[in-house]
Amino acid sequence: MRLKFGMIGGAGGGISPMHLRGATMDHLSELKAGCFSRDIQRSKQQAAFWGLEDESRVYPDYRAMAEAEAARTGDDRLDFVTIVTPNDTHYEIAKLFMEKGFHIVCDKPLALTTEQAEELAALAKEKDLLFGITYTYSAYPMIRQARELIEHGEIGDIVFINAEYPQEWLALALTQSNTTNAMWRLDPAVVGNSQATADIGTHLEHLIKAATGLSPQRVLAKFDRIPDSLQLESNTTILCEYPNHVSGVLWASQVAIGHECDLRLRVFGTKGSIEWQHQDAGHLKVSRLAEPVQIYSAACLYNYPESTRLSRTAPGHPEGLFEAFGNIYRSFCEVLLARKEGRTPDTFTYPTVEDGVVGVRFVNACVESNRLGSVWVDV
Amino acid sequence: MRLKFGMIGGAGGGISPMHLRGATMDHLSELKAGCFSRDIQRSKQQAAFWGLEDESRVYPDYRAMAEAEAARTGDDRLDFVTIVTPNDTHYEIAKLFMEKGFHIVCDKPLALTTEQAEELAALAKEKDLLFGITYTYSAYPMIRQARELIEHGEIGDIVFINAEYPQEWLALALTQSNTTNAMWRLDPAVVGNSQATADIGTHLEHLIKAATGLSPQRVLAKFDRIPDSLQLESNTTILCEYPNHVSGVLWASQVAIGHECDLRLRVFGTKGSIEWQHQDAGHLKVSRLAEPVQIYSAACLYNYPESTRLSRTAPGHPEGLFEAFGNIYRSFCEVLLARKEGRTPDTFTYPTVEDGVVGVRFVNACVESNRLGSVWVDV
Amino acid sequence: MRLKFGMIGGAGGGISPMHLRGATMDHLSELKAGCFSRDIQRSKQQAAFWGLEDESRVYPDYRAMAEAEAARTGDDRLDFVTIVTPNDTHYEIAKLFMEKGFHIVCDKPLALTTEQAEELAALAKEKDLLFGITYTYSAYPMIRQARELIEHGEIGDIVFINAEYPQEWLALALTQSNTTNAMWRLDPAVVGNSQATADIGTHLEHLIKAATGLSPQRVLAKFDRIPDSLQLESNTTILCEYPNHVSGVLWASQVAIGHECDLRLRVFGTKGSIEWQHQDAGHLKVSRLAEPVQIYSAACLYNYPESTRLSRTAPGHPEGLFEAFGNIYRSFCEVLLARKEGRTPDTFTYPTVEDGVVGVRFVNACVESNRLGSVWVDV
Amino acid sequence: MRLKFGMIGGAGGGISPMHLRGATMDHLSELKAGCFSRDIQRSKQQAAFWGLEDESRVYPDYRAMAEAEAARTGDDRLDFVTIVTPNDTHYEIAKLFMEKGFHIVCDKPLALTTEQAEELAALAKEKDLLFGITYTYSAYPMIRQARELIEHGEIGDIVFINAEYPQEWLALALTQSNTTNAMWRLDPAVVGNSQATADIGTHLEHLIKAATGLSPQRVLAKFDRIPDSLQLESNTTILCEYPNHVSGVLWASQVAIGHECDLRLRVFGTKGSIEWQHQDAGHLKVSRLAEPVQIYSAACLYNYPESTRLSRTAPGHPEGLFEAFGNIYRSFCEVLLARKEGRTPDTFTYPTVEDGVVGVRFVNACVESNRLGSVWVDV
Repeated sequence: MRLKFGMIGGAGGGISPMHLRGATMDHLSELKAGCFSRDIQRSKQQAAFWGLEDESRVYPDYRAMAEAEAARTGDDRLDFVTIVTPNDTHYEIAKLFMEKGFHIVCDKPLALTTEQAEELAALAKEKDLLFGITYTYSAYPMIRQARELIEHGEIGDIVFINAEYPQEWLALALTQSNTTNAMWRLDPAVVGNSQATADIGTHLEHLIKAATGLSPQRVLAKFDRIPDSLQLESNTTILCEYPNHVSGVLWASQVAIGHECDLRLRVFGTKGSIEWQHQDAGHLKVSRLAEPVQIYSAACLYNYPESTRLSRTAPGHPEGLFEAFGNIYRSFCEVLLARKEGRTPDTFTYPTVEDGVVGVRFVNACVESNRLGSVWVDV
Repeated sequence: MRLKFGMIGGAGGGISPMHLRGATMDHLSELKAGCFSRDIQRSKQQAAFWGLEDESRVYPDYRAMAEAEAARTGDDRLDFVTIVTPNDTHYEIAKLFMEKGFHIVCDKPLALTTEQAEELAALAKEKDLLFGITYTYSAYPMIRQARELIEHGEIGDIVFINAEYPQEWLALALTQSNTTNAMWRLDPAVVGNSQATADIGTHLEHLIKAATGLSPQRVLAKFDRIPDSLQLESNTTILCEYPNHVSGVLWASQVAIGHECDLRLRVFGTKGSIEWQHQDAGHLKVSRLAEPVQIYSAACLYNYPESTRLSRTAPGHPEGLFEAFGNIYRSFCEVLLARKEGRTPDTFTYPTVEDGVVGVRFVNACVESNRLGSVWVDV
Repeated sequence: MRLKFGMIGGAGGGISPMHLRGATMDHLSELKAGCFSRDIQRSKQQAAFWGLEDESRVYPDYRAMAEAEAARTGDDRLDFVTIVTPNDTHYEIAKLFMEKGFHIVCDKPLALTTEQAEELAALAKEKDLLFGITYTYSAYPMIRQARELIEHGEIGDIVFINAEYPQEWLALALTQSNTTNAMWRLDPAVVGNSQATADIGTHLEHLIKAATGLSPQRVLAKFDRIPDSLQLESNTTILCEYPNHVSGVLWASQVAIGHECDLRLRVFGTKGSIEWQHQDAGHLKVSRLAEPVQIYSAACLYNYPESTRLSRTAPGHPEGLFEAFGNIYRSFCEVLLARKEGRTPDTFTYPTVEDGVVGVRFVNACVESNRLGSVWVDV
Repeated sequence: MRLKFGMIGGAGGGISPMHLRGATMDHLSELKAGCFSRDIQRSKQQAAFWGLEDESRVYPDYRAMAEAEAARTGDDRLDFVTIVTPNDTHYEIAKLFMEKGFHIVCDKPLALTTEQAEELAALAKEKDLLFGITYTYSAYPMIRQARELIEHGEIGDIVFINAEYPQEWLALALTQSNTTNAMWRLDPAVVGNSQATADIGTHLEHLIKAATGLSPQRVLAKFDRIPDSLQLESNTTILCEYPNHVSGVLWASQVAIGHECDLRLRVFGTKGSIEWQHQDAGHLKVSRLAEPVQIYSAACLYNYPESTRLSRTAPGHPEGLFEAFGNIYRSFCEVLLARKEGRTPDTFTYPTVEDGVVGVRFVNACVESNRLGSVWVDV
């Protein structure tokens, strides 16, 4: 059996091809409907490019799509919809499709305000719908390996966390006469009251949760607008307090020249530590007290099965961001397929609407902390 | 327009999912027929898994497939077939489908003997058919960048080449009670008179050609059977002489514990050098005399367009082997689409049957050199 | 001409052999007197081991040494003394020897309180004495190269600074039955009211100053006692504000398993960035907007002469911490020799008592910030 | 007790300061006599710079030095002499001083011909003299760790060896109008019938011996003169056969732009492998079948004591080439001191005249192999 899905957004390029490839690479779902652009011609072109042949299921408007697709039943009905529109529209679209009974995969952030986010989570719960959110970095095999190592006590009790996500794209974009299609990220009307923190800081928050299970109880944030002509922060430093007095420091930047998506996570425990870098995603550095450092490599059989099943090649063959997207969709589809078939799903995990709520709360607590001059704020 | 292709082989796992993903990831072609296994039930299961719905185009035998598909015409006809069967069958299958007029993509090696290889090349020329061969590593964006840098004289005249491809899989496989599905690689009946040289040494030969344009004029090889219970070499060291007295050394091993697909290429010139490693495929080290070493990163705009158009994401997002397969298929499909549409194709390149012939000649020269006690043999 | 120096402390091992080697490796000074231990037998053994043959200049007590050595004149007189005793004694010893007219090299920290530190600085100024302080990491050639690159505007205006110094020694020491000789670092009576911040955080503060010229105007610190049985912090995270609204984040830890003296400095500017890591001290990563990253290598002629003159070997030969100590002593001795010979010294630089004062002020501001719950405190 | 030594050569810079620092850094020996240059004024200046105050022991000629110093007795007598003159003079100087009864430390190569080398070895044996040779790279702590790991069977039986020593200095030197002081290396009258092989290839041969205990039984060499205006090879590739059919490949180059003293050694066994790189001398990569790769770090207590006693600092502090020189001298001096004091020395090891003989035989076998068109030649 293969699941059927629709997509809202997608004609604009950017992240949407990753969603499509991620959703289809394991042959668990296929695209059957969509509203890829408000411009129906672009939408139809995109549909044709992606091999969606039934033009009657290409819509000029997501409301029309929700209406029409909700009327379909049986094998003809979509199992889930994927939302890849600008941030400020996630809430309304997700809400509408959930009301029509569709499961959801949504790009992050879940919503702009905590209230909206919590409303979506409540609705998903009320209607018993699956709701995945593409915190993609957490789906790499070695992050899952990190999680298993930590859960099995291999590094002891966690004592400190250091995570960073430096990028340089904004420094580059600001010098170019042709504005890139990423410049919408600078517009408060679209992205809300935070830029770097909401865009990439939230990835750090979730990556830590995925690897350790921990979410911060309070935060202290310092935002920097670099250059100061920006309306929102492009650089953010955040002190975190996790349960049991575990401290952490997060840094995210969009103006860190020399860095391209250089996500890096380090978790320190009483017996050891783990370190992972996005630029070398297939490896995990594991240090144990008084022993040589170890380098774990993805797909090797010494890894936990929870990690190796996220690899699609033999050890040593690089896999990348597309496959990480695929891992989220695969986990989501496995659970949905199991539900449809009355099976108990494997313990495959994917980031859920609850993770999305935490993310929005985290960003808003950081905004508040910074606004008050970098004081501790509860999340 | 989207091309249609069939596949021979594929139910056995291994490299075939990479072919399928590679062929379809850019929406330029779709699978329409296949003979995925000699076991028709497995073949049909594979077809279903891959979404090939028309069971009448799933065949129990590649000859039956050639016969039936050759009878189809117009939009219904396959544009090309992909051959992912064991090495010893490439020749007969490719020959038959070319005789029926189909374009071909074939996994390497092209054939087991130089005669067979040259016959295929001659046939492709005679019938004016495209014939791609998946020397996948050469399709990474930074290998293409290396080629452009070298062609533009950035490192001066080439003076020495050092390439290596150490793997550890065989050392691992030999200790496992359950034999892996890769053990057919040890069988001379399937792989011919060379193992490591034919399986991975040939990747080095082609990678050098792809990056520099150079092919060796003569070789001197030393084969090692490690352990000596093997019938064929698992470790090979090859001295090469290229035109203009350029020397090179190649090393390939399947028993190099600690290495997983650690392809590494270094090309030295009179003004600089380039270095590329598969484990860090998105970067290229470029050294220029009396200047700091430079690290080029894939997808950055300072790269040549011939390189950047092989990237599918923004700089810093890892891409891997699947995308490299995709690059070969994309280039092949672009040329084929252009031909069908009467356009002149862009200068997209892919490894051709001529490259395949060179590869077979190279391997056989190495075999001969080793047999004679490591003497120089013309390629 | 060769300078003559005495040493206070040194029989305890630890850092003192580095001072001795550093002071003598360039043949600019020789050890002529010392009080290496309060135990006169150990002191004499140390003197013999180091080749100090005149036993009359080995003292049981630093006061006796100051008295006796002050009485010597002409060629017989010490040019400077080196202080390598525990932190809480630096002040009194430095003060006494300055009062006797000796130039000083002192291990960091300069003193435990800001008042003491400022008093020493004032005294040095009043008596026109050289006073070097061994912030050793700042003396690596590539830190000097970073400074020159930044001063020449190569990375534009500085916008953000990220520095870290994770170590694991304390996590290791706490599990060992035999306490190491480093455990005095945990004792407030010896080290004052800060442990990790004073011991290694201060190295970050100075390294930044050495590379950029910047000192923080205010700090916000979060101290962690890991494990909480400690009296002082073993992990510290510090937000910094530098002039012109430049932000920075510093992290230092003695319980970061997997890290050994992994000092790392990153400075981001409007046009580029620099990155240096102690574990790869001979290289400097320089990124410029829209260009490939560059790796500068020590001793290469493309570096500034201010950097290359700190190298003692040809490019590619690793130099380490001993040579960094040597660089501080060489710069100090060059200035002192020039003064003695009536020459204007080259612009060789070394960390001075003024740097030491800044260091003490920085640590105490961090202590205060943490005490108040992580609020901003002026330095 | 401290040993006394003299030096022949040294005023020319280059490697000689490393010998002096290496010999004195551990306070086991002191310079007491020398013939640093054929120009007596330069020789005296060098003596003064190095603190050798007794001008009567500075000689215009090594023969005069041998004569005069041989006449001294008791505490006044030199224990050993260090020879750092050009290659073609090693034989005659070493022979003369051995005839006068002095122990020897000599820079490599031992001599230009096998006959000379064997004569020196025989003389050392006959007169029962210690004879050290500064194959410096073998004295790094992690090479010693590799040796212990291999001897303890940690990687099983050795099956293949890959070593390389690429440098770029010659490519650089040839473009500079001012010839460097290293250009004597190009002169057959000084260096004999080999350049790259004798200068740096021999380091590979010895490094392998130091790490594994293995010496090649036969070699097959391909020399390249790059550029071809050179009289001797600047690039050399060598196939080796070690006992038990173990193969190896060595590559050394002086024109490999982008490489600076990038010595790299990999030894593969049936159970694991080790890898060491000079640019990261303080670490050793150890791979074991079916386990994560391990990174050993120098000075850590999990290393063998034979390794840790070659470290002078705490883990994480870089040590470099000076300290490697120091390790050779320390081992040599320890054995000599033990002999003088009637003790059995610890098992400290240093490269001996026997190693020097092997090195000369190796180089000459390579020369012969290349001359005959790259055929196998017994060593």
